[in-house]
Amino acid sequence: MKARVTIMLKDGVLDPQGEAIRHALGGLGHQGVAGVRQGKLIELDLESTDPETAKVEVARMCEGLLANTVIEKYSVEIV
Amino acid sequence: MKARVTIMLKDGVLDPQGEAIRHALGGLGHQGVAGVRQGKLIELDLESTDPETAKVEVARMCEGLLANTVIEKYSVEIV
Repeated sequence: MKARVTIMLKDGVLDPQGEAIRHALGGLGHQGVAGVRQGKLIELDLESTDPETAKVEVARMCEGLLANTVIEKYSVEIV
Repeated sequence: MKARVTIMLKDGVLDPQGEAIRHALGGLGHQGVAGVRQGKLIELDLESTDPETAKVEVARMCEGLLANTVIEKYSVEIV
């Protein structure tokens, strides 16, 4: 079973990496980009076969290691 | 209009960052993780109002700046 974890900075937290991308896109002639936010995507290959258990386990992984919950929000999707 | 770009390493390309995450999860007691792949997620805030035009434009951004198409694959989703 696969789990897809999406980790983004919380709204209101400054995203200098996203801002750098926006600036670079402007420099390459891509107008019309009002804002850019960059995040992480982590795909986990799990041995677990129960989606509910897997989701709880992956949320624990996010809390403990994958996300910095002070400034980041995460979402878990079982695929 | 928002566009969500997902960038992952192509299958077969070694992902040391994902492997490091897998190793760290094991060390924290999370067994049952067979593999981890890490990628990037970029959310673009676009001024364009036509989804089709936006998708083509974002694909051009990926080819030109956001993704390294030699080793990375990307997908664009208009949300």
